[in-house]
Amino acid sequence: MINVGIIGASGYTGAELLRILSNHPEVKLTVVTSRQYAGQSINAVFPNLRNITDLICEDPSSSQLFDKADLFFTAVPHKTAMDLVPDLINAGKKVIDLSADFRISDVAVYEDWYQPHSSAQFLEQAVYGLPEIHRGKIKNTSLVANPGCYPTSIILGLAPLLINGLIDTTTIIADSKSGTSGAGRTASTATLFCEVHDGFRPYKVGRTHRHTPEIEQELSLLAQHEMKISFTPHLLPISRGILSTVYASLTGKVTENELSALYQDYYEKEPFIRPLPVNHFPATQHVKGSNFCDISLKVDPATNRVIVMSAIDNLVKGAAGQAVQNLNIISGFDETTGLNLVPIFP
Amino acid sequence: MINVGIIGASGYTGAELLRILSNHPEVKLTVVTSRQYAGQSINAVFPNLRNITDLICEDPSSSQLFDKADLFFTAVPHKTAMDLVPDLINAGKKVIDLSADFRISDVAVYEDWYQPHSSAQFLEQAVYGLPEIHRGKIKNTSLVANPGCYPTSIILGLAPLLINGLIDTTTIIADSKSGTSGAGRTASTATLFCEVHDGFRPYKVGRTHRHTPEIEQELSLLAQHEMKISFTPHLLPISRGILSTVYASLTGKVTENELSALYQDYYEKEPFIRPLPVNHFPATQHVKGSNFCDISLKVDPATNRVIVMSAIDNLVKGAAGQAVQNLNIISGFDETTGLNLVPIFP
Amino acid sequence: MINVGIIGASGYTGAELLRILSNHPEVKLTVVTSRQYAGQSINAVFPNLRNITDLICEDPSSSQLFDKADLFFTAVPHKTAMDLVPDLINAGKKVIDLSADFRISDVAVYEDWYQPHSSAQFLEQAVYGLPEIHRGKIKNTSLVANPGCYPTSIILGLAPLLINGLIDTTTIIADSKSGTSGAGRTASTATLFCEVHDGFRPYKVGRTHRHTPEIEQELSLLAQHEMKISFTPHLLPISRGILSTVYASLTGKVTENELSALYQDYYEKEPFIRPLPVNHFPATQHVKGSNFCDISLKVDPATNRVIVMSAIDNLVKGAAGQAVQNLNIISGFDETTGLNLVPIFP
Amino acid sequence: MINVGIIGASGYTGAELLRILSNHPEVKLTVVTSRQYAGQSINAVFPNLRNITDLICEDPSSSQLFDKADLFFTAVPHKTAMDLVPDLINAGKKVIDLSADFRISDVAVYEDWYQPHSSAQFLEQAVYGLPEIHRGKIKNTSLVANPGCYPTSIILGLAPLLINGLIDTTTIIADSKSGTSGAGRTASTATLFCEVHDGFRPYKVGRTHRHTPEIEQELSLLAQHEMKISFTPHLLPISRGILSTVYASLTGKVTENELSALYQDYYEKEPFIRPLPVNHFPATQHVKGSNFCDISLKVDPATNRVIVMSAIDNLVKGAAGQAVQNLNIISGFDETTGLNLVPIFP
Repeated sequence: MINVGIIGASGYTGAELLRILSNHPEVKLTVVTSRQYAGQSINAVFPNLRNITDLICEDPSSSQLFDKADLFFTAVPHKTAMDLVPDLINAGKKVIDLSADFRISDVAVYEDWYQPHSSAQFLEQAVYGLPEIHRGKIKNTSLVANPGCYPTSIILGLAPLLINGLIDTTTIIADSKSGTSGAGRTASTATLFCEVHDGFRPYKVGRTHRHTPEIEQELSLLAQHEMKISFTPHLLPISRGILSTVYASLTGKVTENELSALYQDYYEKEPFIRPLPVNHFPATQHVKGSNFCDISLKVDPATNRVIVMSAIDNLVKGAAGQAVQNLNIISGFDETTGLNLVPIFP
Repeated sequence: MINVGIIGASGYTGAELLRILSNHPEVKLTVVTSRQYAGQSINAVFPNLRNITDLICEDPSSSQLFDKADLFFTAVPHKTAMDLVPDLINAGKKVIDLSADFRISDVAVYEDWYQPHSSAQFLEQAVYGLPEIHRGKIKNTSLVANPGCYPTSIILGLAPLLINGLIDTTTIIADSKSGTSGAGRTASTATLFCEVHDGFRPYKVGRTHRHTPEIEQELSLLAQHEMKISFTPHLLPISRGILSTVYASLTGKVTENELSALYQDYYEKEPFIRPLPVNHFPATQHVKGSNFCDISLKVDPATNRVIVMSAIDNLVKGAAGQAVQNLNIISGFDETTGLNLVPIFP
Repeated sequence: MINVGIIGASGYTGAELLRILSNHPEVKLTVVTSRQYAGQSINAVFPNLRNITDLICEDPSSSQLFDKADLFFTAVPHKTAMDLVPDLINAGKKVIDLSADFRISDVAVYEDWYQPHSSAQFLEQAVYGLPEIHRGKIKNTSLVANPGCYPTSIILGLAPLLINGLIDTTTIIADSKSGTSGAGRTASTATLFCEVHDGFRPYKVGRTHRHTPEIEQELSLLAQHEMKISFTPHLLPISRGILSTVYASLTGKVTENELSALYQDYYEKEPFIRPLPVNHFPATQHVKGSNFCDISLKVDPATNRVIVMSAIDNLVKGAAGQAVQNLNIISGFDETTGLNLVPIFP
Repeated sequence: MINVGIIGASGYTGAELLRILSNHPEVKLTVVTSRQYAGQSINAVFPNLRNITDLICEDPSSSQLFDKADLFFTAVPHKTAMDLVPDLINAGKKVIDLSADFRISDVAVYEDWYQPHSSAQFLEQAVYGLPEIHRGKIKNTSLVANPGCYPTSIILGLAPLLINGLIDTTTIIADSKSGTSGAGRTASTATLFCEVHDGFRPYKVGRTHRHTPEIEQELSLLAQHEMKISFTPHLLPISRGILSTVYASLTGKVTENELSALYQDYYEKEPFIRPLPVNHFPATQHVKGSNFCDISLKVDPATNRVIVMSAIDNLVKGAAGQAVQNLNIISGFDETTGLNLVPIFP
């Protein structure tokens, strides 16, 4: 049993952490914070949580905050996280940070895409929290940089191909589509119901989205050489779900069945990755509410391209669920503890 | 531990039973049937269930079906149920029937709204499975008639008022709105995405919906006199959720605070009923995926009417979740076993 | 041909006025204003209007504003309208005001529901702009108070019954459901996509919505006596559309066919009212984008109640379309000019 | 003025033709057919068309069908069209065929992707009806093969690049997303509301969708050499709209501003193409209900790729609107007649 706190509980990721942790048998949720709703019950903010938890939101600057838990999820914006996390680490706490601040190991790259980094000295101990790739390192760190939602879908989709050197890494194109919860819960005209509903659009086209360096860092590690990809995010009129369609040229002749077997093999022991049979394709509606990542691929012999498709729930495997998976790893619990979330369909 | 079968597993209610039961610690799911998908894995029918269950759909006419479980959920259409349930009961099985066939205790009323009843002799032992009202009787039966979705929302909403004789029962109007999963999974033009999406409409207006006699039976029992209500169902462009807005004239002067306290009191020990504070209103999005029923009310002194609002997930508290609650009761398990489903929002 | 301006063009009602007026053969749109977007093209605000209009948003305080048009639509919030409209009228302009400020003829009632009225002296000349009821008066005024969206659907639905004294006016209950565009385009958490999508909820329950006095004023005029109704608005996860389901007790015995014939007769010459055949019910998806109001009714002999259902597009017949209909009337154009908008389905 | 018939009026394309043609000043709609609804009013099939048209659906085998109009839209499935169109042409009628049967000029290619062609002798006179590319030929034919929805979006998006030889045509990848109306109005489980809503998925991945040869034929013509592309369709939870995101490697160095100017120039005189300014991206919600195609592009210097995005309403520019544009061309009307459809937003 571990005492856990959530700093920044009033966003959608915070709410999802609360949903998952409330059924986690090894976690006692002891403190949640929200600047905006300080003093109010978290279930007044999220009425779905009535009867589930009646924790009161504390102000994040509260002096005794650190005493209340041994592990903290920091679900705050980038920049805020880099100022907060060092104090937690220095106080001997374990931290799973859901912001981007500790994901990019090269501080120059980070500062190129974000802003100056105030705690770059913590980057070395931070581990990129994608368990299927970095499980060993995660086990031994106190600071997990929980991956972005788009990167999770793309990296898991490409890993078996990259590790086996099967694709030309100059040809990778990731066309990704995300549900609107990824845009957060802050009031804004662009994400009003009437602006998003019954429509579809790309945004931050052409290597301008800040998940790009994170994706490239991890793909480069897997391939063992630097690479640049094309990545285009789109906004879907759904609440949850990311589907990435990734294209690459094959370096040699390989059949769909061979690649499918490779994926089955590579992910055989992974509890949350579901490689699909040949000619079955993933759908966001089949992973909703769960920590699963569904992956399938198709080979087009006429162009010698492979098309990899992967689907996750952006709030679960793309955020809160993966964070709990990391909590399980760094706490020595079975990795699936509290994550037996069956996808909800329809 | 109990061996459980689902007869008719390929509809949305069947899928939801599978979702819930797969995490039920006292249930071993041993058999599922589907005429249409016999021989196929249920997770080919519902890809969300991959890695959750790999049961193969059996033909419902399979001769050894009955030997495989001790309790059966029958999630088949009315008429089919009345022909099937007697054999199960006679074989000593417990049955939770999700059709309408055993809900109406007066066979004449049933036959007036449906068709001739082939097993009316079983109506006497059948118990209407609304635990908050009939818990005692459910405990001692082998045949539970699981309530309809609309009736669940309306009966739970009105029970405290009726039991206390606070409303004029000639004035009850229930305006109900349901998500499209209530219409089932059979291909039909009327429930195609393009017909339902971005629209809203009433159907079966004016005491023509078959849930009417079921609602009136239970409300009459609570009020201890016969009554007729107006009930209008509407189709919402959402997958899951029912919200009923129910109007009635108050027989005397009573304040909103008094009525609210009455509801808090009446449902105090109920794990799945959440009476809301004054001036908080239910929303289907706050009960989605859970077995909760959220209820609130408003008094309008100018017209001396009370407006009761209740929200459920039609597939959970309105079908599969309530069925599992009934399983827990007739099996002697804690009533909430396997039903710690936190509403999924957003 | 008439020169027309829109004051407050950057909301959804403003956008809809632009959509409709851009095809109106007798209207020249000469000026649009927006405080927030002053200096920008209106088609940068609403990219659907690219190639349709390239008017630049002017600041509403611009001194030469009044010279630019002969008729103004004021699509601004209540309170703002009451300060603006008098100057327009005094400058000899015709005004169609889409706010609530001139809809309530009794200033005491207005001030009870809104706030003090700064230009009550204009209430007398203001005409409630529901053409099917007040066409004669509209023709001769310079100040049209364009009706609210909910009131339009409810008043048109009940008019034939009230005029003929067929219902007990103490029993009227209007259960209304509206698309989210009715909530406007201002950024707010409550109307974010993720809060509204895949859900449904009531709001302002129990005679607390400000459309209540407006509805009661008009229904009382039709019935020729004061009345109070129950009115409950709900928020639908659709962009456009209102459906009202209205219940009332019949004062005598009358058949569905008789009432249906009465409606056919009453609305026979109305170009925008479509009374439906018996047992056909309206749907918001069948009026979307058009100025139609679809109405049908059902009689329940068991309770002697009539259920009237009416559907409109809240942005068209509930706002901009009705405003253009009023423009046509006060300008002497054929009432349907520019309003041959076929509902868009699916 | 021209007498026009629609063969196959009860699908979504038929309904959209009716919506558009009912406001076309040069068209008199004289006959509509539907095997399924023969003898019923088309407005009973599509209640949105009440008061708009009261044409009765005739059986398509009716003997006097051909006498009733001079031009026919054939909105029937492929295979049915190839059997029907020759008789119409031989009777001296003009035909705009919305099926795939006359789009592929090489009969061997057609038969490879579809089935044997029963009227291949008509392929030579058939003109691929994309006016922005083939206007001259369309003017002089009696048989227009109206383009598919996906091809329209992709071809219009790439034309300026191909004609100017600016991209490596071996690198083209078209990732397309379509609303569900493209799947038609036939009852099917896969397109039920609950299966599509709040989800997203690819289908017919890897050069298996039948629009592939059509796209490749037209792109090859523009580039003046054969090519093969990757094309992946996806199903969006919206009714209307296609957005294609197309990737290709640039053959030389060219800036975003230069390419943007090229597009502005190329499409300058086209009434229905809206090339967007730099860094503005198309959205399906901004073309809904209109015949517009919105196009923009982005250059990524790091990978030397261009990303072209184009959005259309699949039922309008992707089907019925484009068909009416073709009617205008072959009838000598102004090309925009009856097509002044302002996109409806929100």
